[in-house]
Amino acid sequence: MQAREMIGSHPAVGGNVNEALIQCIEECYDCAHVCTSCADACLAEDMVAELRQCIRLNLDCAEVCLATGAVATRRTGSNPEVIGAMLDACATACRRCAEECERHVDEHGHCRICAQTCRRCEEACGQARAGLP
Amino acid sequence: MQAREMIGSHPAVGGNVNEALIQCIEECYDCAHVCTSCADACLAEDMVAELRQCIRLNLDCAEVCLATGAVATRRTGSNPEVIGAMLDACATACRRCAEECERHVDEHGHCRICAQTCRRCEEACGQARAGLP
Amino acid sequence: MQAREMIGSHPAVGGNVNEALIQCIEECYDCAHVCTSCADACLAEDMVAELRQCIRLNLDCAEVCLATGAVATRRTGSNPEVIGAMLDACATACRRCAEECERHVDEHGHCRICAQTCRRCEEACGQARAGLP
Amino acid sequence: MQAREMIGSHPAVGGNVNEALIQCIEECYDCAHVCTSCADACLAEDMVAELRQCIRLNLDCAEVCLATGAVATRRTGSNPEVIGAMLDACATACRRCAEECERHVDEHGHCRICAQTCRRCEEACGQARAGLP
Repeated sequence: MQAREMIGSHPAVGGNVNEALIQCIEECYDCAHVCTSCADACLAEDMVAELRQCIRLNLDCAEVCLATGAVATRRTGSNPEVIGAMLDACATACRRCAEECERHVDEHGHCRICAQTCRRCEEACGQARAGLP
Repeated sequence: MQAREMIGSHPAVGGNVNEALIQCIEECYDCAHVCTSCADACLAEDMVAELRQCIRLNLDCAEVCLATGAVATRRTGSNPEVIGAMLDACATACRRCAEECERHVDEHGHCRICAQTCRRCEEACGQARAGLP
Repeated sequence: MQAREMIGSHPAVGGNVNEALIQCIEECYDCAHVCTSCADACLAEDMVAELRQCIRLNLDCAEVCLATGAVATRRTGSNPEVIGAMLDACATACRRCAEECERHVDEHGHCRICAQTCRRCEEACGQARAGLP
Repeated sequence: MQAREMIGSHPAVGGNVNEALIQCIEECYDCAHVCTSCADACLAEDMVAELRQCIRLNLDCAEVCLATGAVATRRTGSNPEVIGAMLDACATACRRCAEECERHVDEHGHCRICAQTCRRCEEACGQARAGLP
């Protein structure tokens, strides 16, 4: 992804980028994709009936990550209240999805990658949150 | 919209629908559309340079409302932590967008409708939040 | 929804609204919600393993409808090539989802409502397509 | 991004991944982010009134890319009609956005990066389209 180059070229930023927020934006888009993919892979598993909650949490997490990534990308407009609330929601969605995927890491490679990705995104949301004004 | 009929036909619900959540889902989708439309109308105004923050808040609000509407629609999977965090974020995004649109209600009919719609959605998110377990 | 009021208040429209496009925007948002809800209800059914393809088509249709609804809402910027391609894609996604849901109308009320909604949206996309310049 | 690892771990794929589709998925998510960022940067420019069409095409392209990326990620469910129509729509949205951004590459670094990214995504959609059954 090119979050650093894009935000660095924003007229209101002038090269003075917020590294924690950039990291968070990249993790959000990556996590949205991984969760969308994990939901589809879970749906194809023989044990799909046991993966219902995993699929729902995957879909929720994908949705929240995308909205957070977009709001964080527009943050140069100075909207710390909304971005702060979304970073909180996103960390929660990532944690809940990771907890569920972690129960299936031995059986499903997609759940293993998804759990790791959600934990990275949860951490990045927390770091970005700490760096807000 | 048909949120009541759809949620009433969900096998885990059995007709026992949460009215505050249904109202909130309908307001979220409506508000997402109105904010998308208000952003485009603001962009076409002669005074676009003074509406930058309004456009950004419109776009943020649209994004957060859609994610909240989808997560709330899937709530029958029992995910009160994520839905609660999203209802908080959505009420915040709606309030911020309404505050900005309210500054332009005399000049722009789209901001007037958008401000009213955001206030309704903010209220519906609060009611749905209060009704969560 | 308030698509007519919002588009009517757009400075580039001046009250001269395209009725077929407005109908289509409203159907797209409604269909996006119904498909999201049907996917979640299918996931909760005992026979979930037989509903995998239905769930995937529901999720695809929801995604395509939302993108189409947003692009159509911004059409006042005159982007007939993109909106035309999206109306085609949306009619296809709605038709495929309807065909699958129609196989389950006797067993699942959510599939019955979803099939009808997808058919309405498919029709509205076709009408809006025919009215493009 | 981790599209290759995720799709490779899907039970219906068995390591036999479609390289053109994976490349396309990654370009779609990247392009969605870059277009969202370019719209916000354009909005902050002094000459915002001349960038209206660029902002609209950015927002349309972001929306279409995300929907295409998600539908393509779920393609393992075999939905070539919908994914084909979305790849067509996405190539169109990327081309239109690139054409507009290319008019501003000398003045705005964000438009330069965005034009290049849209052209890459347009090309990747075409390649993925050619590889569909």
